[in-house]
Amino acid sequence: MHLTKSDIEGLDRVKRLNMINSVTGIKPANLIGTTTSPPTPSRIESGTGFLRGEGSKGNSNLAIFSSVVHLGSNPALLGFILRPTGEVPRHTYENILATGVYTINAIPQDKIEAAHLTSAKYDRSISEFEECGFTEEYLEGFAAPFVQESPLKLGMKYLETIPIPINGTALVIGSVEHLIVADEAVAKNGYINLETLHLAGISGLNSYYSLEKMGEFPYARVALSGQ
Amino acid sequence: MHLTKSDIEGLDRVKRLNMINSVTGIKPANLIGTTTSPPTPSRIESGTGFLRGEGSKGNSNLAIFSSVVHLGSNPALLGFILRPTGEVPRHTYENILATGVYTINAIPQDKIEAAHLTSAKYDRSISEFEECGFTEEYLEGFAAPFVQESPLKLGMKYLETIPIPINGTALVIGSVEHLIVADEAVAKNGYINLETLHLAGISGLNSYYSLEKMGEFPYARVALSGQ
Repeated sequence: MHLTKSDIEGLDRVKRLNMINSVTGIKPANLIGTTTSPPTPSRIESGTGFLRGEGSKGNSNLAIFSSVVHLGSNPALLGFILRPTGEVPRHTYENILATGVYTINAIPQDKIEAAHLTSAKYDRSISEFEECGFTEEYLEGFAAPFVQESPLKLGMKYLETIPIPINGTALVIGSVEHLIVADEAVAKNGYINLETLHLAGISGLNSYYSLEKMGEFPYARVALSGQ
Repeated sequence: MHLTKSDIEGLDRVKRLNMINSVTGIKPANLIGTTTSPPTPSRIESGTGFLRGEGSKGNSNLAIFSSVVHLGSNPALLGFILRPTGEVPRHTYENILATGVYTINAIPQDKIEAAHLTSAKYDRSISEFEECGFTEEYLEGFAAPFVQESPLKLGMKYLETIPIPINGTALVIGSVEHLIVADEAVAKNGYINLETLHLAGISGLNSYYSLEKMGEFPYARVALSGQ
């Protein structure tokens, strides 16, 4: 099948959405957590370092994103693509601007259906944590909710938004302030094994894939003559 | 394991690179193809629509990227993250600026080792196509080489580069001019099945994963009362 630009423009809208959202290949599956009013911790969960509290009901927000992208390791910076204003509610982004922080939580395979549900357009007063069956967790002094069910969680500090005027999207940039991951998935050299964590990937707008590690290759160097 | 920002800053450089490149989850595996001098087609490969030619030896470039990201479907726009100048040779980017076009080619599982080799720092006069065992293909009137071995190929027109000053990277944006994919992987609704295409995903800088489709969920809507 060979489609030119004008063939693509002539596709039915839904077919074009599905196809063009698929062409980049597999995408990371993450939930971004925010709130406008973090709860007062009522108790400490022993051993985890996380706090739980009452009081954030209805003010927290959880949304699935497949566009989280690595920008740099030192400092550790990540970005994600924000859809145009007006196209979708931007509770996540408004909360990020209000509090300056957010969390990025990798989606495990056994939570893909619940995670997909967060893409529905809930009223601002509804928490997708409660509605979709996820549990809020907080770190002391960090005003964004982590997803207890995720085995790889990042606490992010908002840095800036870079507009992409050509289609009204934007790149939202943050720095990694906290990295929480199950010990058994981290190799001595720092690599995190996504299969050990049973993480999922996304294709298009609604297809989910499991991941199996095939191999790991050394840093590629050009062979010198005689070597 | 819980690392704070200062723990991350205190890691050994290689360990930090490995870990922070892993935290976003699975990443798409694509080869970007460019050339400064497309060959004169010497013959037409019957049935494929592609042209082959002699003459581009040493002037073509092929490089692996894990940062290709969807920006929009109408128009169909994709971006990728460019590392800072000076950190790596930017033959790919220089060729894109010179010709205005490039290709994005999804990496199949049986080519991950060859694809990984393109990340070595070859001299400008060396073609990674030849060096790593890939075959150049051209469309008439489109001056960038496609990868014959890829089952999902995009011909891209360069549009603009958006600088990310905070760490010297940039977002390179292009529009999809050609989409070439194996028919059997495209569903009626437009979705492209990545498992049918045997595509790979990347984690970190050097780990490769196979993909298995788990499920597909309908467009998520909030249930109305009584429904």
